[in-house]
Amino acid sequence: MTRLARYLPILDWGRHYGRSNLANDLIAAIIVTIMLIPQSLAYAMLAGLPAEVGLYASILPLIAYAIFGTSRTLAVGPVAVISLMTAVAVGEIAAQGTHSNLIAAMLLALISGLMLVSMGLFRLGFVANFLSRPVISGFITASGLLIAAGQVRHLLGIPTGGDTLPKILVGLGENLSAGNLPTFFVAVGVLAFLYFVRLKLKALLLRLGVRPRLAEIAVKAGPVVAVATTILAASAFRLGEAGVVLVGEIPQGLPVPALPIIDLDMVRALAGPALLISLIGFVESVSVAQTLAAKRRQRIIPDQELIALGAANIASGLSSGYPVTGGFARSVVNFDAGAETPAAGIYTAIGIALATLFLTPLLTKLPQATLAATIIVAVLSLVDFSIIRRVWRYSKADFSAMAATMVGTLFLGVEIGVVMGVGLSLLLHLYRTSRPHIAVVGQVPGTEHFRNVDRHRVIISPEILSVRVDESLYFANTRYLEDHISELVAEWTQLKHVILMCSAVNAIDASALESLEEINHRLRDAGIFMHLSEVKGPVMDRLKRSPFLHNLTGRVFLSQYEAITVLTQKSSA
Amino acid sequence: MTRLARYLPILDWGRHYGRSNLANDLIAAIIVTIMLIPQSLAYAMLAGLPAEVGLYASILPLIAYAIFGTSRTLAVGPVAVISLMTAVAVGEIAAQGTHSNLIAAMLLALISGLMLVSMGLFRLGFVANFLSRPVISGFITASGLLIAAGQVRHLLGIPTGGDTLPKILVGLGENLSAGNLPTFFVAVGVLAFLYFVRLKLKALLLRLGVRPRLAEIAVKAGPVVAVATTILAASAFRLGEAGVVLVGEIPQGLPVPALPIIDLDMVRALAGPALLISLIGFVESVSVAQTLAAKRRQRIIPDQELIALGAANIASGLSSGYPVTGGFARSVVNFDAGAETPAAGIYTAIGIALATLFLTPLLTKLPQATLAATIIVAVLSLVDFSIIRRVWRYSKADFSAMAATMVGTLFLGVEIGVVMGVGLSLLLHLYRTSRPHIAVVGQVPGTEHFRNVDRHRVIISPEILSVRVDESLYFANTRYLEDHISELVAEWTQLKHVILMCSAVNAIDASALESLEEINHRLRDAGIFMHLSEVKGPVMDRLKRSPFLHNLTGRVFLSQYEAITVLTQKSSA
Repeated sequence: MTRLARYLPILDWGRHYGRSNLANDLIAAIIVTIMLIPQSLAYAMLAGLPAEVGLYASILPLIAYAIFGTSRTLAVGPVAVISLMTAVAVGEIAAQGTHSNLIAAMLLALISGLMLVSMGLFRLGFVANFLSRPVISGFITASGLLIAAGQVRHLLGIPTGGDTLPKILVGLGENLSAGNLPTFFVAVGVLAFLYFVRLKLKALLLRLGVRPRLAEIAVKAGPVVAVATTILAASAFRLGEAGVVLVGEIPQGLPVPALPIIDLDMVRALAGPALLISLIGFVESVSVAQTLAAKRRQRIIPDQELIALGAANIASGLSSGYPVTGGFARSVVNFDAGAETPAAGIYTAIGIALATLFLTPLLTKLPQATLAATIIVAVLSLVDFSIIRRVWRYSKADFSAMAATMVGTLFLGVEIGVVMGVGLSLLLHLYRTSRPHIAVVGQVPGTEHFRNVDRHRVIISPEILSVRVDESLYFANTRYLEDHISELVAEWTQLKHVILMCSAVNAIDASALESLEEINHRLRDAGIFMHLSEVKGPVMDRLKRSPFLHNLTGRVFLSQYEAITVLTQKSSA
Repeated sequence: MTRLARYLPILDWGRHYGRSNLANDLIAAIIVTIMLIPQSLAYAMLAGLPAEVGLYASILPLIAYAIFGTSRTLAVGPVAVISLMTAVAVGEIAAQGTHSNLIAAMLLALISGLMLVSMGLFRLGFVANFLSRPVISGFITASGLLIAAGQVRHLLGIPTGGDTLPKILVGLGENLSAGNLPTFFVAVGVLAFLYFVRLKLKALLLRLGVRPRLAEIAVKAGPVVAVATTILAASAFRLGEAGVVLVGEIPQGLPVPALPIIDLDMVRALAGPALLISLIGFVESVSVAQTLAAKRRQRIIPDQELIALGAANIASGLSSGYPVTGGFARSVVNFDAGAETPAAGIYTAIGIALATLFLTPLLTKLPQATLAATIIVAVLSLVDFSIIRRVWRYSKADFSAMAATMVGTLFLGVEIGVVMGVGLSLLLHLYRTSRPHIAVVGQVPGTEHFRNVDRHRVIISPEILSVRVDESLYFANTRYLEDHISELVAEWTQLKHVILMCSAVNAIDASALESLEEINHRLRDAGIFMHLSEVKGPVMDRLKRSPFLHNLTGRVFLSQYEAITVLTQKSSA
């Protein structure tokens, strides 16, 4: 039972589910549903998919997450960055608006879901660690800019696109004359309204005596008001006839669960993008879930989150949806609205299903410009330039990985951007560890401490060289160590003993072992003894399995102090 | 002058060149020349190139290395593993025996040379560190097996090839009936003779009173005797007419230096193989050079070696040669024969040039089987199975990288093998460091030392948790740390202080910094103070450039002992 509950957290919280849970979850679900309807439509448009696909992706995936997820309050569904990545990935398979494009989006969700579940079952979540934070921040900021720039055409009514900043800007410049003035007015109106809501409404409501939580929720409901108002305006002023592009007919009814047609060539083409979407979606989702969980002292199990997000994506792929993940804004709304269990997600799913059944006729007259404006306002909040300065100050290496990610994402495409960032992070990490900090140390007078001779006044003997390596020894830095020691030996002409102080050496791999043997061998030829000190337990256990300790000309000392004491006595004797 | 001499070591040793140097270098050059003639022909055949290309690759490259190289005794020229890699790389461009194939080999040397020189000038030699020792050993052993298997067809007179073990074996099996009996007899005779020379001759000569060094050299001259004998036999018994494949007409005269035709598509196709050839050639060559230099207390400068090997390869590419590097066997012969300066290489080049001018007519009747037998005997000495057991015992991670390299090389091809090995080494390194050893530590009674509570009897307080992380903190392990600390905090219910002991933390990157901020933030919400202890100088300098220390709820203590003393007093106060 506990084993089963590990994979099905619903068995755990479901048993204690009570009446007060129900009331709180229901209220949260209603608020999230109202927020999700315009968002789902908008993100489907961003992904280049029919509007209803966004709604479909907000039904079954939510139920799947409620069954498998470990977060009490995470709200899954379509999100901005993943929608952009979907648009790019499926855009390479088939043109937007075609049936193949839609099939590819479903397949993408399915593949991504299977990848996530596999990573969860095989405990491969550590792969997501390779996305360093500067890479993620850089990617999110650059994607936000790219998404906002890409939506400008909807504000102007220009029928052209592009998936990199230069293409988008050139497209806009060349087609500016094709713009539509009524569309522009709708867009400016919605943008102004949304920014007013975002920046001023809360303060206004608080001054009017509204409770803070309610004021917060009212702010989040801004897009729904914009949607309703512009639908009314479009009907009243016949904006469609004036050239304003409307959402148009949305098929009424629920998606019929079905396996998308599996085309092997398509699967192969989608595998790379699916992996990136899986990893980025997972990292973002877990970080939101952990932040919210910490506030209520709850725990998130990352491996189980992989399974839950995987299940959500599989459900999306089987019900005419596209890739989903846990979203920041909606999860915060869910949390603030008082959701207590994942059941809130189930009620939200029911809410969206009802909307899909009964509200879609009303959405026909919704201007696309309204959706574009809501997207722009949402994604510009993701853009954070201050992080760039912070990272620049802290570390040039991290900054260059971030810069590569941003430049790559904006100018070459989202996938290339992420791959460039991850590749550069790895290369820089390896470069850093390939030139470890190696200090010659001496005894601090009157203590048992040993410190860097360059930073402290310490006692050294010309016959005993103590070297501290501040890094694990492995293939990337082992030749550097060899070179460094032979240089030191050439300088210290009276040398009789070399002590390698291993207090910061957490591992010695086979390459490093061979180097140590080589160093021992060369020192022996020069009549110099080689000793080790402060070797850690796990490292020592491993060294005992090799002939190195047997061949070592000197000894292994427990502490550096013991080494110096013994060798000094021996020298003077 | 010293700056110039850094890039032109010949200016250094050339100034002190004396008569005794000349005598010793000349003797070494004559011996190496005699050894190099059959080797050059054999390795050209292994590379799938005309015999004379091997000779050309042993003239100008040697002079280039003598000018730029820092090793006094390294002998460069065609070597087995690089010849195999050349055969594979240029075989993908054009069929063996065609003019394009030859052009591709020259271009490969040129590209590889330019890459090496660039790496030398930009100090990028660290890239070679990514070839871990188990990967190199695995690759050399697998290549040796592959080369030996590939030569068996020449022993049998079968006209079929293949570049992976399965293809070679299938090719042999299917064409066994096409074998030629006289070829087989020549081959068996040469093999038996070479093995006798290798295994018995030295002991025999020593018993006859020959000096050890001379006996050693006589052993190395075995192939020359085999070549001369089989040429005579081929002429006497008209072996060519009996179906024994002979080397045939070799153009007499020296290569005319010329730029090979630069075809951009070809350059693109050869870039990857050229990089691998450069790195493997460099690693092998430097390790031979360092081993020999250590014996005479001389120094090798790896960055300058890159330039020297690059110059040798450029010279090879411009003079109808193919990729070269420093060879183990010939360098040892050069060293043992008493070479004192790189001038020995220049004399050897002159010797090979004379041979190319005057001896080539004699080589027309040389059976290819003789060359194949010398190759087999030479490469089987590279095969070392004992390393496999050693690495298996020491580290399963290193073993799996080695196994992947060997299996990849034998069954999928040399390039794939190396790439698989390097990729797996990197992945395993990242996996290891992504789950660092994290110990809860306590005070060893009566001392200022702190040790793992699981391994030692130590004093701990339920209000103060001391955690030691045995790894630098960077993007791959930062989430693991977050998870681990939140687990510990959930267990320690009376907790008031967390001390992060940073004695083994050599770096904290931007991702880890963000995690530390997150941990500090979460602990603060739980009313727990976070402290650091034993932070290293460079790490502290960097932390001071961020707002982290300002936001830290607790303090930074110089030593863990100080931290415990201060916090215990505070708790009891």
